[in-house]
Amino acid sequence: MDLTPYRTFIHELARESGEFIKPLFGQAGLAVERKDDQSPVTAADRGAEELLRARIAQRFPAHGIIGEEHGSDRPDAEWVWVLDPIDGTKSFITGVPLWGTLIALTHQGQPVLGCIHQPILDQLMIGDGQTTTLNGQAVRVRPCPKLSEATLLFSDTFTPPAHPSCQPFDDLRRHVRLARTWGDCYGYLLLASGRADVMMDPIMNPWDIAALVPIVRGAGGVITDWNGGPAYPASSTIAAGSAELHRQVRAALA
Amino acid sequence: MDLTPYRTFIHELARESGEFIKPLFGQAGLAVERKDDQSPVTAADRGAEELLRARIAQRFPAHGIIGEEHGSDRPDAEWVWVLDPIDGTKSFITGVPLWGTLIALTHQGQPVLGCIHQPILDQLMIGDGQTTTLNGQAVRVRPCPKLSEATLLFSDTFTPPAHPSCQPFDDLRRHVRLARTWGDCYGYLLLASGRADVMMDPIMNPWDIAALVPIVRGAGGVITDWNGGPAYPASSTIAAGSAELHRQVRAALA
Repeated sequence: MDLTPYRTFIHELARESGEFIKPLFGQAGLAVERKDDQSPVTAADRGAEELLRARIAQRFPAHGIIGEEHGSDRPDAEWVWVLDPIDGTKSFITGVPLWGTLIALTHQGQPVLGCIHQPILDQLMIGDGQTTTLNGQAVRVRPCPKLSEATLLFSDTFTPPAHPSCQPFDDLRRHVRLARTWGDCYGYLLLASGRADVMMDPIMNPWDIAALVPIVRGAGGVITDWNGGPAYPASSTIAAGSAELHRQVRAALA
Repeated sequence: MDLTPYRTFIHELARESGEFIKPLFGQAGLAVERKDDQSPVTAADRGAEELLRARIAQRFPAHGIIGEEHGSDRPDAEWVWVLDPIDGTKSFITGVPLWGTLIALTHQGQPVLGCIHQPILDQLMIGDGQTTTLNGQAVRVRPCPKLSEATLLFSDTFTPPAHPSCQPFDDLRRHVRLARTWGDCYGYLLLASGRADVMMDPIMNPWDIAALVPIVRGAGGVITDWNGGPAYPASSTIAAGSAELHRQVRAALA
């Protein structure tokens, strides 16, 4: 399966969406609306997804599209693009550059190509399950033998009682060397480039996950859902630099 | 008291230290040593402080200098520069651009001018207790009437039992709308520019705090130590966008 044309196209998509989003980051007065689930959304999220959808529809009209902001077109097509124009909108609206644009391509329901793009920091990570690159250079996870020496990243503090099922997750912070909410997709980028050891999110949507799977695997990491099941589709994510560390995380959660 | 020459000089210091640090951020193979307190340090921290000290000694030879990495020279002088070349070294070595260079000037023991510089994001904040600017534009804290609507930032998760005295702090996360470790000096920059409501650190050193005091006050915010006492010198910090919100934070901690 030759993914080269799609890989080239992802570079174009990342560049164009990045140029659209970049001037809106930190812009005073950018209106923030609340969606039905109370999560925030802005003209940057909506406009970037519209731009991406238009470019994909023009270039690959038979392909499907699933996006966070504008729903699904042909979600059962052989090839489907899965888009999160701004993963980490809370970070975006607070002025913290740890958000990113997620672009994934699935084939027969499984992600085969994924991209995390952070345009403020000019970081473009692309993975295909075999290899992962950051700005064109191959990257790998780093060795970390024990959970007690790990840097653990997560997106939200997910404090009980608002999230009662997250008590074990909350407790996990006590078992590691460094625990930080340097999260959303940027946490997975740090894991896949050997700067963090565990990244996890107890609550995920398909558009949050699809790009991460070929990226984490391409860098030599392990990614599953919260219960050790398939990474995609799923509603939670645990990624670790090795199978052994992943096992230790799941044991600590149990 | 005319601070104009010092203000101009701070711009020069920030530019020069930023140029030194910037290429070392994210550099593969940058050695990380552990200090006696197990906190990390790199050639970026040490080299940037040496550069700053040399420039200050050349320009204002009678002034004192207190720095995180290289100690104190004439700490009882009328004018003393207080330096933290990289506030947020853990963030720096992880590839997260939420660290910054702190430069403060104290007069008779009290900070009168402070600077937070984030060279990767090209953000330079300067405050003098009356006015605070971000890249030359005046900034203000934002209104936030209730703790339950606040964005609370902090540097460390400070999980008990490693930090048993931090249990009330840990619990505070449950009382706010958004709680994140988007911390170190960048959290105070977000507070002073109206993008966060509370920023706090239970463990601080003089070089962590000195620059923050004129910045937070210049933006209209309130800054004290953990017990509501003087902000500088102190060993902890609570900053909030208003006296009322500050009171609510302290009540929740009590």
